[in-house]
Parts: sequence; C-alpha cells; structure tokens
Amino acid sequence: MRIAIPKERRPHETRVAASPETVKKLVNLGCEVVIEKGAGTAASFTDMAFKDAGATIAKDAETACKDAAVIFKVQKPIVGGKDDEIGKLAKGTVIISITDPYRSAKEIEAYAKADLTIFAMDFVPRITRAQSMDVLSSQSNLAGYKAVLDGAAVFNRAFPMMMTAAGKINPARVFVMGAGVAGLQAIATAKRLGAVVLATDVRPASKEQVESLGGKFVAVEDDEFKQAETAGGYAKEMSDAYKKKQATLIAETIAKVDMVITTALIPGRPAPVLVTADMVKSMKPGSVVVDLAVETGGNCELSQPGKVVIKNGVNIVGHLNMPGRLATDASDLYARNLFNFFELLFDKENKALSIDWNDEIVKGTCVTHEENIVHPALAHAKEPA
Amino acid sequence: MRIAIPKERRPHETRVAASPETVKKLVNLGCEVVIEKGAGTAASFTDMAFKDAGATIAKDAETACKDAAVIFKVQKPIVGGKDDEIGKLAKGTVIISITDPYRSAKEIEAYAKADLTIFAMDFVPRITRAQSMDVLSSQSNLAGYKAVLDGAAVFNRAFPMMMTAAGKINPARVFVMGAGVAGLQAIATAKRLGAVVLATDVRPASKEQVESLGGKFVAVEDDEFKQAETAGGYAKEMSDAYKKKQATLIAETIAKVDMVITTALIPGRPAPVLVTADMVKSMKPGSVVVDLAVETGGNCELSQPGKVVIKNGVNIVGHLNMPGRLATDASDLYARNLFNFFELLFDKENKALSIDWNDEIVKGTCVTHEENIVHPALAHAKEPA
Repeated sequence: MRIAIPKERRPHETRVAASPETVKKLVNLGCEVVIEKGAGTAASFTDMAFKDAGATIAKDAETACKDAAVIFKVQKPIVGGKDDEIGKLAKGTVIISITDPYRSAKEIEAYAKADLTIFAMDFVPRITRAQSMDVLSSQSNLAGYKAVLDGAAVFNRAFPMMMTAAGKINPARVFVMGAGVAGLQAIATAKRLGAVVLATDVRPASKEQVESLGGKFVAVEDDEFKQAETAGGYAKEMSDAYKKKQATLIAETIAKVDMVITTALIPGRPAPVLVTADMVKSMKPGSVVVDLAVETGGNCELSQPGKVVIKNGVNIVGHLNMPGRLATDASDLYARNLFNFFELLFDKENKALSIDWNDEIVKGTCVTHEENIVHPALAHAKEPA
Repeated sequence: MRIAIPKERRPHETRVAASPETVKKLVNLGCEVVIEKGAGTAASFTDMAFKDAGATIAKDAETACKDAAVIFKVQKPIVGGKDDEIGKLAKGTVIISITDPYRSAKEIEAYAKADLTIFAMDFVPRITRAQSMDVLSSQSNLAGYKAVLDGAAVFNRAFPMMMTAAGKINPARVFVMGAGVAGLQAIATAKRLGAVVLATDVRPASKEQVESLGGKFVAVEDDEFKQAETAGGYAKEMSDAYKKKQATLIAETIAKVDMVITTALIPGRPAPVLVTADMVKSMKPGSVVVDLAVETGGNCELSQPGKVVIKNGVNIVGHLNMPGRLATDASDLYARNLFNFFELLFDKENKALSIDWNDEIVKGTCVTHEENIVHPALAHAKEPA
C-alpha cells in the first residue's frame, strides 16, 4: 500500500506531513512511502534523510501521488488553479490533513465531488485515547513558545533582571491572555527567559495552572470568582458586574506591562478582541503585542496578518502560521500525530486500510466519504455509507 | 554648563547617550541638558520623557550642540560629508563616546586638528574603580543575551526539551565559543531557555565559570590543561600538541551541535577565525551559527556583516551592532556608564569641568586634547599638555 507525501504548496507553509522517523515506522508497518522531492527542505529534512529512512523520492507531486492509497498532508489540498492538488487523484483516495472544516465549505464540496475521503486532523476529538493524535495541542504548544521569542525579537530590552556594574536592569513584564495550551507554553517560556509573567483566562480554574508555572493570575478575586474557581473545568458564564470589574483590571494591567501575548481562539468562529486600539495607546513606547489569533481576525484590534506593525510606538506582531516558524519540531510532532492516527486506519496483518466507521475518532474526523460530506458538524452532512 | 546629546547618525545605531534617568541626575548636578529632537526615539525614550527629566529639546543637532561644553555620544563623531558632526563645534569641546581608536586614525587626526577633547569610553581601564564606566562589559553582556535570541529566531526548533502527548522533543544543543562577558551571558541565556549548553575558551580557568552557569566545558583535559586550569587568570600559551588535540575536539563538537555562538574579539585586531567553511559544512541542516565578531572580520569564515546567510542549510547570523538591537537597555546602561565617567570630570561645587589629567582613568581614555593625539597607545601620540 502506497502512502504519498507531497510538498506543501500553500503560502507560509514550511511544514511537512512526515519525518524520517515516521517514514521508518510506516515502512516497518509494510507500507511503501513516496515523498515529493524537496518536501522536507523548509523543515530541514533532506531527501537523503527520507531515503535513508526507506522512502522513495518522486520528482513531483503528481508522480508522488500516483497510485497512492493515502496522502499525508499538513494543510488541506488546494482546489483548482495552478497549484491544484486534487484534479489527478484517483477516486477513493484517503487524504489526512489539517482541514479547517468550518471555514472550507467550498473546498469540502469539491473533495466530496471528487470522491476523496478526507480526514481532518483538527477534528480529532479531545479524548484520552486520541491525545497522541492531537495536532491542535502539539502545534499550539510550539506556537506559544515561538510567540515569546517573536515578541523578544522586536523588544528593545532584555527579559531577565540583570545586575551589572552599571546598576540593575528591571525584568520585562509579560502578560499572557488565554491559558490554553499555547498560553501555558508562553507563560513557561517567558518565565524561563526571566520575565515577570502575568496571565489571565476566562476560566477561573486555570489560576492554579498559571501559578504552577510561576505566573501571577490576573483576576478580580471576589466571591463569585472563588466559587467559579473551585467549580473547576470549563468556562462558566460570569455575571455582567463581574465582567465589568474584570475588564477594568485587564485594561489597567495592559497599560503597565511590556508585552502582551494573546492566545484566544474559538473553534469555527472569529477570535475575540482582547486588546483594543485604546489599550494599545495606553501602553509604553517600545512595548510589544504578539497576536496568536491573527489568522482568525485577531485578538488585537490593530494587528495585521503577516506583519509587524508599529502603532504609537508599540510593536504589534501578527506572524502567520506560528507553528510553521518552528518547522522542524512542528513537522516532527505533526508527523507523529498523523502516524498515530494512521495506525488506527491500518490493518497490520493484511497490510491494508481497514477503517472502522463506528470508531469515535474516525467518526469525529471524517469530513467527506464516497462523494458525501459526512461530518455531523458540517451543514448538509449526510450519514456515512 | 551645557551638555548636549545629539541624535546618533551612523547606520544601524539605535542607541542614545543619555536616558531620562541620567538626564535627571545631570540636572541635579546643576548641568543644563539639551537633547536633539527624536534622539531617543529608536531606544523608546520619548522627547517628553527627556523633557520631564529636565532636558530642553533642540530642533536639530547644531542647535543642541551650540555652546555645549560637553557632548555625550554613543559613537565617535562623523567627520565630513552631509552628516558631519564636528565642523560647527567650538574649540575645546569635550566629546565622550565609544571611539574605536585603533581603527579610527583618520578621524582622530581630524578631532585633534579641530581641537576637540575626545574621551574614548571603550578605553576605560579595566580596574575596580572604573567598573561602573565599563561600556565594553555593559554592551557585551546585552550582545551575549541577544545572540541567543537572534539564533533562536532563525532556528527551526524549540530550545527546551518538551514532553508532549506525541512524544519527546529533544533539547537544542548550543555551543558558545569564548567565555568572556558576552559568552557567559550567552551561556546563561541559552541555559535559561532550556538548551543543553557547551562552551569553550582559550583560558582553562574559565571552565569553572562555564560550569557555574550550567554549561559543559569543552576541552581536552590532559595534564597540561589541568596545570593551566589551576594556574588561573589570563590565557597561558598552550603547547602545539595540545592545540592540535583541542582543535580536533572543537571540530567534532561543532559537527554535533545545533547552534554555535562565537564571541571572540581581540581589541585592535581582526577577530580570530573559529568556525571554518569546512566546519559549517559538517553541521546538520537547520543548524545556526551566530557570529558576534562580524564587525571585525568575523569568527566564522562564512558570516557576512549585516546579513543572515544560509550555507549548506546552515543559517549564519551576522547582525551588526548587537547591543543596538536591544536599544532601550543598551542605552540605559551606556548612559549610566557615561554618567559615572562624567562625574569624574565634573566639579560639583563649582558646577564646572575640572579634569585631573593625572587620573588613571582620564589618562587611559583621553584620545585627543589641545590639538594633539595624546593617548600613548596610538601612533604619533604626544604627551598631553
């Protein structure tokens, strides 16, 4: 059974869907692996490394994908245009990628029409059994790390306190908004580098996590907060009075810190605005905002996708594809996530695909199958055959 | 007595020779401080902040420097051309700056001819009393920090080991060559960020310092080394046989690490080559070399001043003016160094300059005075009047 890994063709994409490590594992399972020439270059995986791992190198995407039963990709296949990635594929080809299904209605229709079986790695359910396949976690973790370094890159000061013969340099104050996977890694990284770290999250229960990483949790800690905190788990809707007090505290905090890193994403919806233009205006000259949500509208009103802009002396960092800015590690982890998912679809004895359509992970990730859009979360989805 | 701080005009210079903090101190001493409009902008010091500290803002350099007894600068004044900084100065004006005297013969002649009294902050002797004026230390410290961040910026992987649901990411291996002020701060910073840090230096005695920061010292530790190590202090010339063994070990180390940071400078002479083209070729694709000596010829054969180049898949980082890449902190510390030096020249009671020409620090730093080149280390120097 042949697995193809073409080079990614979308702009800013530096990752690749396999690593020499996962190629070796696939070959050991009895699969034939074909990799498009140069597919790993941007992630520092050479063709030679893939070859040594047991892959064949194909001269172009078409050659790589010919007769492939399964295609591993980072981003969903491009439909139409000069970089079209589906036109020459055989019916029934299985494609596994980050698919961004909520914002890809047109493409998903095209995949269904072309009779491709698409699995969305970003739909892997957040259950224990699927943790090793969770690309949102693996990639967000790296994005959180890189956000701090990208912020430090444009910051005119050092992070740690330094005691020098000419006196003391104060530590940088970094405020991380949103304490999910990316936020927690940003807290840990800023702390490692020597900053004083503040953080906030709409979930009072995340206070403990923030503090365990050495961060100070920023919240109005009244009775309502304390009840919500011990209730634990997911975000509980707080009262309007609480939200108002909290908003004031957040605005005051932003005016005092040197760097704000925002990490608030809502799946399938535009990112919430956390840092308004007025808040940016309140910041000191030379401060920095790093917006990790810039691809879905931005957490900062003034951030611009793919750019570092300066407003009122404040650097606002809006890099695209943050995990791709650590292409080697991001590819490494993504490739492992994908391999773990693939094992679920593969019958090791018969060395062939064997998909259990009743499996919770399979059902949760399959977007199109046999010319139908089958995922229940997508409009017009039909029951899988 | 008027002190002027013009805006720096040399390329890549983002620093400024005063901070709001030192302006306040100068004003408290009874000096009048005039700052050129926008002089602190690149270092995130606003005109308003300087004004609040007690300075007057002048519309241009000429206005700022008019009637100034002393001019504070970061870099030596430009001679001639459209950005000329000395043509309109009064005879006898005192200028304090980083002067790079060994490589500035022509300019120093011009300063003498214009009857300017030039003090070179980079000539401050390394004695205890002058530690608080030591700009080489204060700026190198920041350069060492920034070198790690600049390396991390182009590195496709994260520094720390990460345990994730998809498995482990290995820590980056960083090799710091030269354990002076910059090297030690680079070791500390890479360690903070989570890397495994190796370091070397021609002084066996620096082993202890490297290890105290959590680095592993790379040296052939034979009897000769052990004797040199306990002898302590400055570099002792090692035998040719030792040097050969050590060179082999260094080459093997470079081939194994992910990042090399070179920090070897020799005052007044070109930087030594530590990383040859062959060594770069031996490195893994995606590795990084950061060359802190690029302005004086470079420690890496392939580095290019002011550029990040990629050779054999290895990123070679050759940014200019590393301290200037942390303009706020670098200006802050430089301004303090300069203020501490200025206090030496200033009579607080009479609120006027009062220079003790027999002071070791004054003698060590004065380059030109009363139309003569007076520093004994410079060719054709005459005795000060």
